[in-house]
Amino acid sequence: MLPRGRPRALGAVTLLLLLLLLVGFFLFGRDPEYGLRAAATLDGDLYGSRNRSAASLQPLLPPKCELLHVAIVCAGYNSSREVITLVKSLLFYRKNPLHLHLVTDAIARNILETLFRTWMVPAVVIRFYDAEELKPLISWIPNKHYSGLYGLMKLVLPSILPLSLARVIVLDTDVTFSSDIAELWALFAHFSGVILLWLDRLRQTGWEQMWKLIAKQELLTLMATSLADQDVFNAVIKEHPELVHPLPCVWNVQLSDHTLAERCYLEAADLKVIHWNSPKKLRVKNKHAEFFRNLHLTFLGYDGKLLRRELFGCPNQLPPGAEQLQQALAQLDEEEPCFEFRQQQLSVHRVHITFLPHQPPPPRPHDVTLVAQLSMDRLQMLEALCRHWPGPMSLALYLTDAEAQQFLHFVETSPVLSARKDVAYHIVYREGPLYPVNQLRNVALAQALTPYVFLSDIDFLPAYSLYDYLRASIEQLELGSQRKAALVVPAFETLHYRLSFPNSKAELLTLLDAGSLYTFRYHEWPQGHAPTDYARWREAKAPYHVQWAADYEPYVVVPRDCPRYDPRFVGFGWNKVAHIIELDAQEYELLVLPEAFSIHLPHAPSLDISRFRSSPTYRHCLQTLKEEFHQDLSRRYGAAALKYLTALQQSQSRA
Amino acid sequence: MLPRGRPRALGAVTLLLLLLLLVGFFLFGRDPEYGLRAAATLDGDLYGSRNRSAASLQPLLPPKCELLHVAIVCAGYNSSREVITLVKSLLFYRKNPLHLHLVTDAIARNILETLFRTWMVPAVVIRFYDAEELKPLISWIPNKHYSGLYGLMKLVLPSILPLSLARVIVLDTDVTFSSDIAELWALFAHFSGVILLWLDRLRQTGWEQMWKLIAKQELLTLMATSLADQDVFNAVIKEHPELVHPLPCVWNVQLSDHTLAERCYLEAADLKVIHWNSPKKLRVKNKHAEFFRNLHLTFLGYDGKLLRRELFGCPNQLPPGAEQLQQALAQLDEEEPCFEFRQQQLSVHRVHITFLPHQPPPPRPHDVTLVAQLSMDRLQMLEALCRHWPGPMSLALYLTDAEAQQFLHFVETSPVLSARKDVAYHIVYREGPLYPVNQLRNVALAQALTPYVFLSDIDFLPAYSLYDYLRASIEQLELGSQRKAALVVPAFETLHYRLSFPNSKAELLTLLDAGSLYTFRYHEWPQGHAPTDYARWREAKAPYHVQWAADYEPYVVVPRDCPRYDPRFVGFGWNKVAHIIELDAQEYELLVLPEAFSIHLPHAPSLDISRFRSSPTYRHCLQTLKEEFHQDLSRRYGAAALKYLTALQQSQSRA
Repeated sequence: MLPRGRPRALGAVTLLLLLLLLVGFFLFGRDPEYGLRAAATLDGDLYGSRNRSAASLQPLLPPKCELLHVAIVCAGYNSSREVITLVKSLLFYRKNPLHLHLVTDAIARNILETLFRTWMVPAVVIRFYDAEELKPLISWIPNKHYSGLYGLMKLVLPSILPLSLARVIVLDTDVTFSSDIAELWALFAHFSGVILLWLDRLRQTGWEQMWKLIAKQELLTLMATSLADQDVFNAVIKEHPELVHPLPCVWNVQLSDHTLAERCYLEAADLKVIHWNSPKKLRVKNKHAEFFRNLHLTFLGYDGKLLRRELFGCPNQLPPGAEQLQQALAQLDEEEPCFEFRQQQLSVHRVHITFLPHQPPPPRPHDVTLVAQLSMDRLQMLEALCRHWPGPMSLALYLTDAEAQQFLHFVETSPVLSARKDVAYHIVYREGPLYPVNQLRNVALAQALTPYVFLSDIDFLPAYSLYDYLRASIEQLELGSQRKAALVVPAFETLHYRLSFPNSKAELLTLLDAGSLYTFRYHEWPQGHAPTDYARWREAKAPYHVQWAADYEPYVVVPRDCPRYDPRFVGFGWNKVAHIIELDAQEYELLVLPEAFSIHLPHAPSLDISRFRSSPTYRHCLQTLKEEFHQDLSRRYGAAALKYLTALQQSQSRA
Repeated sequence: MLPRGRPRALGAVTLLLLLLLLVGFFLFGRDPEYGLRAAATLDGDLYGSRNRSAASLQPLLPPKCELLHVAIVCAGYNSSREVITLVKSLLFYRKNPLHLHLVTDAIARNILETLFRTWMVPAVVIRFYDAEELKPLISWIPNKHYSGLYGLMKLVLPSILPLSLARVIVLDTDVTFSSDIAELWALFAHFSGVILLWLDRLRQTGWEQMWKLIAKQELLTLMATSLADQDVFNAVIKEHPELVHPLPCVWNVQLSDHTLAERCYLEAADLKVIHWNSPKKLRVKNKHAEFFRNLHLTFLGYDGKLLRRELFGCPNQLPPGAEQLQQALAQLDEEEPCFEFRQQQLSVHRVHITFLPHQPPPPRPHDVTLVAQLSMDRLQMLEALCRHWPGPMSLALYLTDAEAQQFLHFVETSPVLSARKDVAYHIVYREGPLYPVNQLRNVALAQALTPYVFLSDIDFLPAYSLYDYLRASIEQLELGSQRKAALVVPAFETLHYRLSFPNSKAELLTLLDAGSLYTFRYHEWPQGHAPTDYARWREAKAPYHVQWAADYEPYVVVPRDCPRYDPRFVGFGWNKVAHIIELDAQEYELLVLPEAFSIHLPHAPSLDISRFRSSPTYRHCLQTLKEEFHQDLSRRYGAAALKYLTALQQSQSRA
């Protein structure tokens, strides 16, 4: 997609792109000697003395409210993850409004659009450009792999960026800033003679013709092997050295095992940008690797919500929704006992969908995705879950930025998990003291790509046969197309860490009779599953109807377009109950499946359930939420909602 | 304690302390109008234009290897915690070696000495000064509270800092840097005329006489109310305005509800230091509070280990032990299957002892401290543990910096936990993928202050009577003084979340017979506790001896000077077994207590146990560790250690 309301300029030379810096970056990629020599000369003048460096180089920092433009090409799951560390380092040091021009494929766009919408960073404008449209301009160049094509796109950025854009800094996704990008921007002005010269040249010779011609010449001599973007840049520069003005090397400190670049960062107290362009990435062996790695890890683990900071004295540049959110938060009464709940409900969590590479399931009419949410302390459930559920899963993980990195390491080192590409992991970043259980469920639900979803919890293991059985049942019952129904998967629990998991309903019943299994929460909260009617299920050979009753919270299979969970329920309590009421109010049939089952494994009580038990305020606030939920229910369903209120009151008078 | 080998200079005017900056800081504390006016004038010259500011102000940054001196007064548990955020922000932006002069009470010294020793930050020198020795110099000034005395110490810093120290920056613990402290240091040179003038004046008039005289005058008119250090500074300045050269206000951006200071940070893109001097601290209402809060939270949650970075091109300034550690790490073979274990064993974790205010237990000859370790996912055990164990506890928590803040919030909002001052929490900061269980136990053990310790695990709840019973048993058995013995506390387990906890041995036996309780790991690992001889315990009325056997890992009460845990065992497995072998090798008697018991609550398997079960490499590495442990054992105990090796081999041939 091209920017709305701007003229498309595909195929035309956009003279306004300043390639100076772009070239400066790429120059050093393949030919460090050349780049370094040039940089060393500059260094002598500009960066030689620590005492002068910071001072003498920045006489023309851009005015504080000037918008700085940055272009990044980003495609696929891994680059989408990588680019965020770059963006965090950029935002940490920046003091100017930024406009990010992101050239993305559909995957990266989907991920980054969600991320930036929920990140809500003030004074950052994001615009997406469709990489697909650039492909024809470069696909004639032979190149070895997929990502190579995206690398080559930097050659044709002038063709896609708006004509009105005069200057842009082009960044690779694998760089980390350790300084304000305004200092880099300032070099435009500092070397302004060079810039003007470059633009003149571009006009006279035509950049597009020039690089194509040279690339084709190169291809002749290279006998049609592949070319990367840097090869093209280097070839152009070789023929037209007058076109390039190298950047001081502190703006592109490259880390590789060949430490030629060390001459650059002997004075690296002044280093500005680190480029992780070794294939070894963070594991590169280098005298100062520790220093660079720590800077990189700083932003890898940096809590992104802390970058939601406004700029001083510039016109308001709040992202969509941020102002209403601020107002709503400002209206909360900090002294109110349920303040924490109110605040948690209003929190907009940053969301990083499909954090890891993912293969969407092929379209199948009765396919089911298992939907669940978890935090770090349930990570060890994932392997077992993968063994029990061979189908697609959509899981929301509530993590800090640092935990997300631990999670990444956990998946990468698990053969079971890294083999599964049909499990989509969505990171919802932590904010606030209460677990936003229903917001997490909604994120996972929204990202399920099959027509049906199994709404489960992370501490349950489904019967090995459940995935196949559910798909067969959906087909047989003509769920969705013919009838609006929720299929109930009966829930059991074991109190043993190690359960010899039943392979069939018959085995399950034997364990149940032996006291090795119980129906779920038999001891603590029988009403949560009583309507499932376990006695009937024991004998049932066919699906049977059950009626809603107060506090019912079964695990169900429903069409993907089912009602969302009510996000007001944060922390412990009533989060599933309210969803089942919603299904009932919308007249979903409740059908119990005779061969389906799922077993809860033991775990320590969560922090939230502990707080619920120990804090009268917590219980009071949950009660308030319930009442507000019922008021909304009455508003939406009128008299039909009366039965829920009656049931609530009866249940409370019993308690 | 005064610095070793430096002349003590108590009571003498140290002319070399540069009070310029010190005064600059305090000036704004009580009289913002005055400070601001002065600062505004300066701002006009120096900070007016964004374009010039960064550049024109730093013509004389100190040479990159120049040592910068910083003095901080810090006393008590909370200030020791607070100061770390300041230090992190300092280290994050600094490019010079730093010398921190810390004036501390015994509590802060104990905490900070451990922290800095384990932090191992290169190019940072720490020196402690005993605040006790300064007290007589200021205790004649009436002041309302304890911390006030420490505030006043800034007045007499010239008396305690070494004569050779020419310049020092004095910081409050509640400031956050957002820039390189070298820029502040540079102001010494920038205003060098003023500095010299100040020193001359100091010599001529005698600072010590001057401030005392003026303070006494003030006290007359104030009718003997209390004086804070800032009152004294302000009074001196009022009489001798020529002595002070105010700092640009960006070097002391104060946050308070009275936002007079806003005029300062209209241009706060240039802000350098934020001062959280409102009693509301982070909750202060202020137009830009969010911005400042986020900067503060950045360093509050910042992973301190990332600040272990060396400076470029300065002579090696590695802290003690760091060089050996680096060499040892460099010798590890990354391709070796047990590399992760080796690396984890070598990790030096930052340790923050007594993270929260703590009341050490009064000296009692038979007192026992419960010793345990935990990570974030077991936090919910703490309240129950406090109910079951009314005595002192020493707990090591394995957390990230960010989790430590969550933990702080958890304790503060728990009435049960915040009421207990006899529980000492020691934070061991996370580093590496394996849980360093024995290193954690050793930290908790080292900080136990009673003569005996109960070495427990966090998921066990002791009998309500255990604390009293143990003390009585220790006294009765004349443990320690007369005999070297380990008292065994028999371990049980429940598989139910909610257990009606037995109030006596009789009740416990009833539950055991009813199948509601089991002996610990009865199903999975009976040999771990079999030697306790539960059948005998059932009938026992008096303590009885048991013999060591392979894989025995009971929970024991021992004198505090017992052998430490072997830190090579990281992750899951054999960590307690090895410790019991060590006790047996050192000829501790093993005595089972007839009325003692402790019950394990259910929880999900830890990540480490999951990895142990699923990874052959993990099991192989554990096996390697066991073998190395036995080799060390043979070296230390000779033939006496043979029985352990034999037992290991027998146990393995059975398995």
